[in-house]
Amino acid sequence: MNPMAIQGMRERCAEQARRLQDRITEALAGISGSVFQEDVWSRPGGGGGRTRVILEGELFEKAGVNFSEVHGELPPEFARKLGEEAGRSQTPSEKSDDPADRQFYATGISLVLHPRSPRVPTVHANFRYLEKGDTWWFGGGADLTPYRLYTEDAVHFHRVWKLVCDRHDPAYHPRFKKWCDEYFYLAHRKETRGIGGIFFDYLSGDAERLFAFWKDAGEAFLEAYVPIVERRRGETFPPDEREWQLHRRGRYVEFNLVYDRGTVFGLKTAGRVESILMSLPPLVRWGYHADSMEAGKEDLSGPQAELLAVLKSPRDWV
Amino acid sequence: MNPMAIQGMRERCAEQARRLQDRITEALAGISGSVFQEDVWSRPGGGGGRTRVILEGELFEKAGVNFSEVHGELPPEFARKLGEEAGRSQTPSEKSDDPADRQFYATGISLVLHPRSPRVPTVHANFRYLEKGDTWWFGGGADLTPYRLYTEDAVHFHRVWKLVCDRHDPAYHPRFKKWCDEYFYLAHRKETRGIGGIFFDYLSGDAERLFAFWKDAGEAFLEAYVPIVERRRGETFPPDEREWQLHRRGRYVEFNLVYDRGTVFGLKTAGRVESILMSLPPLVRWGYHADSMEAGKEDLSGPQAELLAVLKSPRDWV
Repeated sequence: MNPMAIQGMRERCAEQARRLQDRITEALAGISGSVFQEDVWSRPGGGGGRTRVILEGELFEKAGVNFSEVHGELPPEFARKLGEEAGRSQTPSEKSDDPADRQFYATGISLVLHPRSPRVPTVHANFRYLEKGDTWWFGGGADLTPYRLYTEDAVHFHRVWKLVCDRHDPAYHPRFKKWCDEYFYLAHRKETRGIGGIFFDYLSGDAERLFAFWKDAGEAFLEAYVPIVERRRGETFPPDEREWQLHRRGRYVEFNLVYDRGTVFGLKTAGRVESILMSLPPLVRWGYHADSMEAGKEDLSGPQAELLAVLKSPRDWV
Repeated sequence: MNPMAIQGMRERCAEQARRLQDRITEALAGISGSVFQEDVWSRPGGGGGRTRVILEGELFEKAGVNFSEVHGELPPEFARKLGEEAGRSQTPSEKSDDPADRQFYATGISLVLHPRSPRVPTVHANFRYLEKGDTWWFGGGADLTPYRLYTEDAVHFHRVWKLVCDRHDPAYHPRFKKWCDEYFYLAHRKETRGIGGIFFDYLSGDAERLFAFWKDAGEAFLEAYVPIVERRRGETFPPDEREWQLHRRGRYVEFNLVYDRGTVFGLKTAGRVESILMSLPPLVRWGYHADSMEAGKEDLSGPQAELLAVLKSPRDWV
C-alpha cells in the first residue's frame, strides 16, 4: 500500500466509477432503445475493465462507456513526464528513475457518445482517480462538441457543471471552465474541439472533500447531457448538415490522436486499444480546403460560421 | 549560405522536385481522367509550395501531390529532437540552443493517393532534401498500403525499388527496405501500416552520388505504382470489401497522426495544415472489436486474414 494514499480510496473510487457506469448505461439504453454490448477484459500488466458499447444504434451511431481499474509499472520516460505534469499542480515533482515511483494505479469511467443526428452534440466525460509512486490525485471533466450551435443547449450544459462546482468550491468553476477551453485545443487548427465544459486534473489535498466533489460531478453527467438529446433528437436536417458533421468529426480524431493525454496514457501503458480508441467517431471525412471554407469566406455562412466563431474564441455561457 | 551545404544543391533539389511533381500529376491525371486542382501558397515564416489535389475522382477518391520549399527557424525543442535524430545516422549530433543551428531549409515532393476501389492500393511517396544549421541530408521513400494482398503487386512494387537502389549501392535496398518496415509501424496495433517499400533518411556524405540516387528514386515512382493501378482498377468487389477498406483506412490515420515524423514536422513548423493533412483518407470508419475480428478468430478469414498476416510479420518480396 502506498503510504501517502488514503486508506480505502482506491476501492471507494473504483466502486463509485462502477456504479456510475451502471447508472449511465442504463439511462442511455433507456432513451436510445439500444442495447450496450459489454466486454469484460483484463490487462496483462495488471487490472482490467468493463467496456460497454453501442454500434450503429438509431440515436447513437457509436457510444462507448468504459470502466477500468488498472495498475502496474509505467515506462520510465512516461513516468517522468507524468510526474512533471502532476508537479505543475499540487503534488510534488519527483524523480521517476526509481521503480517504486513508477508504480501506478488508475480507476475511473470514460465515455464518448457520437449521436447519428448532427443536431445532437457529441459528448465526452471522464472521471478518474490516480496514484503514482507516493502521489495521488483526482481528475475528470466533461465537454460538449456540437455540430450546430444552440445557445440554449450550451447554457444548459455549462450551468449544470457550474452548479456542481459551486456546491463544493466557488473557485472551481472559473478555473475548471478555463482549463477545459485550454485543454481541448487543436493548436494546428487554432480551434477548440467543442464548446467546453469543465476539466480538472492533479487535484490533491483534502481527500474527503475532493472525493465528494468528484463523485457529485460524475453523477451530474446525465443531467447535463440528456435534456439536450431530448430537445434535439427529433429535428430533421438537410444532407449537407450530415456532411458537415462527418467533416467536423475529423477534428475530433485529430485532437484525440495528436493531443489527448488520456489517449497517450492509454497507448503508452499498453492499455486495451479498442477501449482507448472507442472515442473515435464511427464515420469521418477528410476533404481538402476545409480551411478556406471555414475561414468565413464565401462558402461558409449561417450556422456553420456561427459555430466556428465560438470554437475560435471560447465564450462564457453562464 | 550554409558553409557546409553544397553550392547550388537547394536549387537543384527544388527544381527536380518541381519537375517530378509536374511529371507525376500529368501521368495521374492522364490515367484517372480527373483534373488536379492547384493551390499555390506561401508560408508566413518563409517559402511556400504548390499543392495539387483530386477529390472524389472516379479512380482516386482523394489524391494529393505536394511540392514545397520552406525555410526559417525551428522551435528550440523540435530543433533539438531533429538534431538528435539526424545525429543517429551520418551527420554529427549538435546543440540546438544556438539560433543559427535552428535555421532550416526543406524542399521536396510528398504524395498520397487514396483510390476508391479497395482492390487498388493506397500509396505514399516522399522525396526531400533538408538543411539544418550546418548539416544537410536527403530523405525519402515510398510504401504501399493494399486492402487486399496480391503477391504479384507486392513483388512488382518492391522489385522496382530494389532495381533503383541496386543501381546506386547494393547496400541500399536491404537497409532501406528494413527501415521502411520499422518506420511505418503502429506499435499499439503491432502492425505495419502496409507492405512497405523503401524508407531512407539523414543520408549525407557524397552529395553528388546521393543526389543522383535521390533523383532516380523519385523518377521511379510511376513505374512502381501505375502498373498495379492498371491491373486492379477494373476489378469488381463485394460491398464488404469497401467496408474493410474504410476500416483499414483508420489505421492510416492512426499512423499519420500518432507516429509520422513528417506530419509532426509540418505541424510543429507551422506548415500549411491542409497540405500536411492532405494525406488523411477521404472517408474512414472506426468500429469496435476490430481487434478480435483481426486476431484471426471466427470472423476473419480469407483475403483479410492473409493481409493481416503480412502486416504482423513483414515479408521479403524480392
